[in-house]
Amino acid sequence: MKDTYGISHINKVRQLQKKAHYDKATVHAILDAGLVAHVAFVQEGAPVIVPMIYGRVDDALYLHGARKARVIRLLERSDRACLNVTLLDGIVLARSAFNSSMRYRSVTVFGTPRLVDDHDAKVEALRVISEQSIPGRWDELRTPHEREIKMTGVIRLGIESASAKVSDGMPDDEDEDYETPIWAGVLPLESRFTELQGDDRVLDGVTPSAVVQRLQGRRL
Amino acid sequence: MKDTYGISHINKVRQLQKKAHYDKATVHAILDAGLVAHVAFVQEGAPVIVPMIYGRVDDALYLHGARKARVIRLLERSDRACLNVTLLDGIVLARSAFNSSMRYRSVTVFGTPRLVDDHDAKVEALRVISEQSIPGRWDELRTPHEREIKMTGVIRLGIESASAKVSDGMPDDEDEDYETPIWAGVLPLESRFTELQGDDRVLDGVTPSAVVQRLQGRRL
Repeated sequence: MKDTYGISHINKVRQLQKKAHYDKATVHAILDAGLVAHVAFVQEGAPVIVPMIYGRVDDALYLHGARKARVIRLLERSDRACLNVTLLDGIVLARSAFNSSMRYRSVTVFGTPRLVDDHDAKVEALRVISEQSIPGRWDELRTPHEREIKMTGVIRLGIESASAKVSDGMPDDEDEDYETPIWAGVLPLESRFTELQGDDRVLDGVTPSAVVQRLQGRRL
Repeated sequence: MKDTYGISHINKVRQLQKKAHYDKATVHAILDAGLVAHVAFVQEGAPVIVPMIYGRVDDALYLHGARKARVIRLLERSDRACLNVTLLDGIVLARSAFNSSMRYRSVTVFGTPRLVDDHDAKVEALRVISEQSIPGRWDELRTPHEREIKMTGVIRLGIESASAKVSDGMPDDEDEDYETPIWAGVLPLESRFTELQGDDRVLDGVTPSAVVQRLQGRRL
């Protein structure tokens, strides 16, 4: 497996090229840190976006939805899909509006979506998607019913090309603006899990398992 | 101005219809709470997504980028664009993988993108985009230079149709699963601004203004 995605006219970052990364380590780290991806496909010539949860194994992403959902039926028939995961890390407050911007980690993936039909491959993909948000939870839950597996559509999106863009710096102002008495810097944005809230039908004496508890306070 | 977006085959929510909203109050509240939108367009028949900051005025969204950026040039020529803003609010840990899900607020907008060419309309759109993330900051900063305005492309995306989807509940498990000794509930996810970090070229004695300071600790 190569350790960098190839650069073509499809995935080449043209704006702010200094912030671009194509190495798999950076691309995969951002994909692995996210919980929601935005997936775009073309319906009757027009673009449609759907936010979806996902999971990654090597150079493939897995997505799921109701088997009969539009997003699954259309991805199944599409030659191309585009997926983006963006984690927003803060606002960069520059000395001018023009140079103000955001701190973020973002990955865009281009690939061919394929329906996963094989029963065992489908269950494995569902496990991968579950593990992305709650590592260890899958093994604590009952095996999916056959009916549930049938009702679920799973898409494999092979990562054919990808690019990451990471903005983590301070303002980059015009020389003359540094002379103005304007405060400038960064306001970080933090996404963090807070405290577990049980539903009112948890059986007496049942408490959150260790794998669930350890997510509390975790940052994305 | 009508207070609900019309429902057509383009924006009708088909899955989890109970969570769907088409009223402008709900749609606009989610758009106004977000900081980053995902925008999709079609390039040579294939979908492309770009994360962008934005601002809203009534039934229009404004987007910006470098005037020569691909996203601006393509949106300028596109008949249709789709935009989604999703705020993730937590993980719903059900008693089965099948019923596990997310808490979120999400809006999808469909409309026709148009380049904003008029000088004053362009500056006003830039102000609206700036105010979305840092209300009050625009008036503290210098007027944009003509060169900066020329280098920036602004797109107006009229909201022709839209739908919101809001998931804020507890797990909805199968009857028999409630008998199992599995903890279930919600793990909330909170996105919050933390503390300001000045850059190392802030002039002596200059402190963050009130409009900047009041963002600290704010939740999205």
